[in-house]
Amino acid sequence: MSTIRIPQVVPSPDKDCEAINNACKRLGTDEKALIRILGCRNAAQRKLIRDTYHQIYNSSLIDCLNDELSGDFRKAVILWTYDPWERDARFANEALKSRRKNLTELQVIAEIACATSPHHLVAVRQAYCSLFHTSLEEDIISNVSLPLQKILVSLVSSYRYDKEVVDSSVANMEAAKLRQAIQAKKLDDDDLLRILSTRNTFQLRKTFQLYKDDYGTSIDKDIMACGKSVVESVMKVVIWCLDTPEKHFAEVIRASIVGLGTDEDSLTRAIVARAEIDMMNVRGEYFNANKSSLDNAVIGDTSGDYKDFLMTLLGAKF
Amino acid sequence: MSTIRIPQVVPSPDKDCEAINNACKRLGTDEKALIRILGCRNAAQRKLIRDTYHQIYNSSLIDCLNDELSGDFRKAVILWTYDPWERDARFANEALKSRRKNLTELQVIAEIACATSPHHLVAVRQAYCSLFHTSLEEDIISNVSLPLQKILVSLVSSYRYDKEVVDSSVANMEAAKLRQAIQAKKLDDDDLLRILSTRNTFQLRKTFQLYKDDYGTSIDKDIMACGKSVVESVMKVVIWCLDTPEKHFAEVIRASIVGLGTDEDSLTRAIVARAEIDMMNVRGEYFNANKSSLDNAVIGDTSGDYKDFLMTLLGAKF
Repeated sequence: MSTIRIPQVVPSPDKDCEAINNACKRLGTDEKALIRILGCRNAAQRKLIRDTYHQIYNSSLIDCLNDELSGDFRKAVILWTYDPWERDARFANEALKSRRKNLTELQVIAEIACATSPHHLVAVRQAYCSLFHTSLEEDIISNVSLPLQKILVSLVSSYRYDKEVVDSSVANMEAAKLRQAIQAKKLDDDDLLRILSTRNTFQLRKTFQLYKDDYGTSIDKDIMACGKSVVESVMKVVIWCLDTPEKHFAEVIRASIVGLGTDEDSLTRAIVARAEIDMMNVRGEYFNANKSSLDNAVIGDTSGDYKDFLMTLLGAKF
Repeated sequence: MSTIRIPQVVPSPDKDCEAINNACKRLGTDEKALIRILGCRNAAQRKLIRDTYHQIYNSSLIDCLNDELSGDFRKAVILWTYDPWERDARFANEALKSRRKNLTELQVIAEIACATSPHHLVAVRQAYCSLFHTSLEEDIISNVSLPLQKILVSLVSSYRYDKEVVDSSVANMEAAKLRQAIQAKKLDDDDLLRILSTRNTFQLRKTFQLYKDDYGTSIDKDIMACGKSVVESVMKVVIWCLDTPEKHFAEVIRASIVGLGTDEDSLTRAIVARAEIDMMNVRGEYFNANKSSLDNAVIGDTSGDYKDFLMTLLGAKF
């Protein structure tokens, strides 16, 4: 369930654009107005606003936001204003082009491949080609070494059946195949990748449950016991994103604010990516895992317009 | 280039539907009228006719054609009337559900994966899920054994960049990797599949050309020298579909009519699938390879309404 609050009567895109333009034209941008408008519209409404803005002012809303805002707030508002698939294509590209290739970067690809709908994933691949003039898979190949390269290419190429069809005997057989690959510490095993990248998520959840029933440990724990490299960590994210994405994103938010300093990029990504999908469940998972409120954690670690914007996406009124 | 002849002034979908309905209502269906209308409309126009027919008569045009026509003619007209991606999803399903798993069946999957646009391939995967309540990849896994299973899953999962971007040094390096896999007779090699299923077709054509330049034999010949099983034959189709699809489809048509008897299913598939894409080039390739005309071959091996319909798709007036 989404956490954003869309007003019962939504102003016309023309009226929204006029208000956005007024907020930007002021001496000292009216950030609160921008938050109130863009933070309370869903993806389809934001697209209409972008298109209408372009028609009326003959310039791009993204460019306007880029000129008027700054810092983490700017980054968050712009990411939110893109189409979700364009946003994810940009996340993926940034991750692949980053010099570091640790969990923080590479888990982004796993999230896009395993925690979104098949339709969305294809739209991300299309947007990636349009924006970066190469395919997402080719950029994974150029920038990620084996065995993660093979794992990620396989997962981003998936187009899963999206309805609940579960076959317990297949799940049982495939749990055994997963176990075999994991015991051999071969996380890019052909059978393992075939199962994780072609089965529907309902089927996979049954497989993971039977894995635990049959072998006494959960599959993510067995994967982590294979080694301490980024491969195991990314594969754990893969399992969580397929099994309980809300648990994964609660963990991303926790990791982004724990300790000294905040990883604003990860915090922004998690909230912007899930606000319209399952942020209500992420909030619940966060509370279960940390015995404290996600909202308080965000309030404690952020400030100013950035905080107000994230809290608006989390459903706060201000 | 397409071979179908769309009239300069296309009647409205309402008028087309009325004429189709009249042709079906007659005592003795007016097949010629159906050929004249449906055989001379492109995919978008046929979709409009299907939708309009449903609105006016509250019944499906496909059901009507199914009731009124018969034999190979019926099969061809109905396949032509579907959306191209639905048609290909049905071709793929029929191939996978067939008891025989020889070249005639399995090459259909290679054609869909390698001789169509990335956008079309994704639409086929979507249509497959909607029609058959499982993914195309899952049905390949259930019905095709290794190593072809791995090869086909990898190819149908591709979403290639669709513009001409060619890097000769990459092509050179990848030609060497292809050569290495083929010399080891390992046609499901990870590197080989990665190259064939992620690179854009322009890049691959350069790679195949450098392969021939560097090693003296063309890659399809080297593949065929690996063995005599269906794996090598399907991989040859893969290479031809990526490199020169018109050559492949000219060969499908030749094989369907050579000798005693005709393989009407393959003949229909090749003409229906390519009439709107590159049938003009297929005709040229057919002539180059066989020193005789494709049109005459079709005329010689078919008869009646079936012949008239295929010839209409090939651009004949009658």
